[in-house]
Amino acid sequence: MPQSWLDIAPDSPFGLHNLPYGVFSEPGGPGPRAGVAVGTHVLDLGAAARAAGSPFADAVSGPSLDGLLAAGRPVWEQVRATVLRWLTDPAREADVRPHLIGRDRVRMHMPFTVGDYVDFYSSEHHATNVGRIFRPDSEPLTPNWKHLPIGYHGRAGTVVPSGAPVVRPCGQRKGPDDPAPVFGPSRRLDIEAEVGFVVGAPSRRGARVPVGGFADHVFGVFLVNDWSARDLQAWEYVPLGPFLGKSFATSVSPWVVPLQALEAARVEPPERDPEPLEYLRDAKDEPWGLDLALEVRINGHVVSRPPFAEMYWTAAQQLAHMTVNGASVRTGDMFASGTVSGPVRGQRGCLLELTWGGKEPLKLPDGSERAFLEDGDTVAISATAPGPDGTVIGFGEVTGSVLPAEE
Amino acid sequence: MPQSWLDIAPDSPFGLHNLPYGVFSEPGGPGPRAGVAVGTHVLDLGAAARAAGSPFADAVSGPSLDGLLAAGRPVWEQVRATVLRWLTDPAREADVRPHLIGRDRVRMHMPFTVGDYVDFYSSEHHATNVGRIFRPDSEPLTPNWKHLPIGYHGRAGTVVPSGAPVVRPCGQRKGPDDPAPVFGPSRRLDIEAEVGFVVGAPSRRGARVPVGGFADHVFGVFLVNDWSARDLQAWEYVPLGPFLGKSFATSVSPWVVPLQALEAARVEPPERDPEPLEYLRDAKDEPWGLDLALEVRINGHVVSRPPFAEMYWTAAQQLAHMTVNGASVRTGDMFASGTVSGPVRGQRGCLLELTWGGKEPLKLPDGSERAFLEDGDTVAISATAPGPDGTVIGFGEVTGSVLPAEE
Repeated sequence: MPQSWLDIAPDSPFGLHNLPYGVFSEPGGPGPRAGVAVGTHVLDLGAAARAAGSPFADAVSGPSLDGLLAAGRPVWEQVRATVLRWLTDPAREADVRPHLIGRDRVRMHMPFTVGDYVDFYSSEHHATNVGRIFRPDSEPLTPNWKHLPIGYHGRAGTVVPSGAPVVRPCGQRKGPDDPAPVFGPSRRLDIEAEVGFVVGAPSRRGARVPVGGFADHVFGVFLVNDWSARDLQAWEYVPLGPFLGKSFATSVSPWVVPLQALEAARVEPPERDPEPLEYLRDAKDEPWGLDLALEVRINGHVVSRPPFAEMYWTAAQQLAHMTVNGASVRTGDMFASGTVSGPVRGQRGCLLELTWGGKEPLKLPDGSERAFLEDGDTVAISATAPGPDGTVIGFGEVTGSVLPAEE
Repeated sequence: MPQSWLDIAPDSPFGLHNLPYGVFSEPGGPGPRAGVAVGTHVLDLGAAARAAGSPFADAVSGPSLDGLLAAGRPVWEQVRATVLRWLTDPAREADVRPHLIGRDRVRMHMPFTVGDYVDFYSSEHHATNVGRIFRPDSEPLTPNWKHLPIGYHGRAGTVVPSGAPVVRPCGQRKGPDDPAPVFGPSRRLDIEAEVGFVVGAPSRRGARVPVGGFADHVFGVFLVNDWSARDLQAWEYVPLGPFLGKSFATSVSPWVVPLQALEAARVEPPERDPEPLEYLRDAKDEPWGLDLALEVRINGHVVSRPPFAEMYWTAAQQLAHMTVNGASVRTGDMFASGTVSGPVRGQRGCLLELTWGGKEPLKLPDGSERAFLEDGDTVAISATAPGPDGTVIGFGEVTGSVLPAEE
């Protein structure tokens, strides 16, 4: 990797090997627009591209990443290569430097317009734990689990950017011994630490995206907190799946890491047994397991370190499954992995698992206990991945604080 | 109701009492734009409004109904009153007539940009039948069914206008005696005759839309065919609900009937027992049951006449439930009733019920039998409702033909 004329710490998670995309604004500046994180700065992508007369200037000049997403893989590669050249060629410094803004000065926004949002359920550890907690009298994994990546559609209209507060939802709940459901604020508000993927290039209705077509359609990767009200969910989800227990808010991290930045993070997923049907088989030499190390903090205290490399189904398989029936994907469609949980307790990605249905509350260093979230709690999920040559790829974080219910 | 200077048959389902909105284009004309159906014509709404200098001209001049939907209830009422005046004031005939186009000349398009799509499950007859067929060893209705309108999110990106062909989906299926799932074209392709509602005025995240706020947010009503692959659905839907069994296509009728046109169709819904929680209680004097008579035809033969007035949960209750957790609604969000089925066999809204899981095939007048849909079959769903003074409100129809699987 060449050196930048910009001062970037060697261990920066936003070095030249990363260059994630987001949408930012700063006080007194123009409105929200596309930027690239580099070191402690954000590069105003549209302004730099227009000044340079770049052929992709129009695609990156909107108030979101939508234009870049829709432009397709050749343009994604061209933009990335161009930004890298801008930041490493000393002759470009004078032109580019005016378009760098300190990241401590900017506010981040939703990076793209969400089309459909699909949430998967692809951690074997998570699905097993949830099965044991929700359905103690049955096999923890349903018979279909190892044959297909189970997923469902979530609410796209309540996907919010990191930092947006989350109002505690109200709804119906009914304990096993309650004669009838009662209404009120959720008492079992939870998080789900997930990894999200956004589609750039659309597909045609009726056609499929094979496992090998993943990188032609998916632009990049980010973090997701799929807030969940476990008491609402438990009462409502049979037979048509989660609805109000999930639909009040889903938070996403502001920086979208392009797939190209994750070459060094690609790993073999766990062995699949039984072997899945042919349309779900991934090529051994082109694995889409990703070695992301997640960290979940509540009020600043680390409560879990979920390992994304443990996921049973990869995002490439999820996309192949999602489209095998001819369902098309559009620019801005996002899908999330499902809660990321590893095999040991300190790697579980939600409180439902960490506290085993609330029965074993977490002790926080401040002396308080948490079975589920309390009003005022702040949750932050961050992640890193290995970059080339011993570098680190940062995903930043997705945060949100819980506001009291509006009754 | 005053008379029009336009020749409209007294029994026309598109008389002055209806005036539904859609998006049309005609050969050689400008692109898709908003229109109002009247008699055998469509009124070019934007052109007429611009010619008249109407204050709402901008809102109705886009390539879809999105601007009108977003404008809110006072504008909806103003536009409807204005169009009625245009069509009844003889002094306006010379100005308005040039903007009328024969409906036989136009092509209809998607009427609005779909935000989120939620599908409910609110016919007691349908849910009972499906429970008996899918879960013969359990109570047909799950314990939550009479306490809340069960729903789930569908795929917004594959909502298509009437007439769009539907490719038979492929996917996994597994019969109870199969040792493992197999892959291939669905063998149990089905329809679901439903009624859809589109949100105009958005709500704030964190706030609720009460049952009484229905008409402030919902713009109008249309017909939905929620195509379903029963074999894919049966294998995948536990525990997170339907996914690929539904996501390949959902067809909508081109004309959106405004709520204002349905005053005479409002009826008391069936009695709810047990009484639902307070947030779901509807005012006795403001019922949102709707007396729509649906008709389902396969290849031109009527196979069912589902009565919408039988629905257990109303659309007003569905909206109140959908937002009670603070989930916001956006302009263009659509929700559908779930399959409309009445108490007797000839009123069932899907083949799964009509043929009792395929065991009792329908005999069509041409001598053929249908357990489920065959390639080449055309399905049409139409509906009417009572209008004022003995008139009839027409919903037109939603049609689609089945194309062979793309393998």
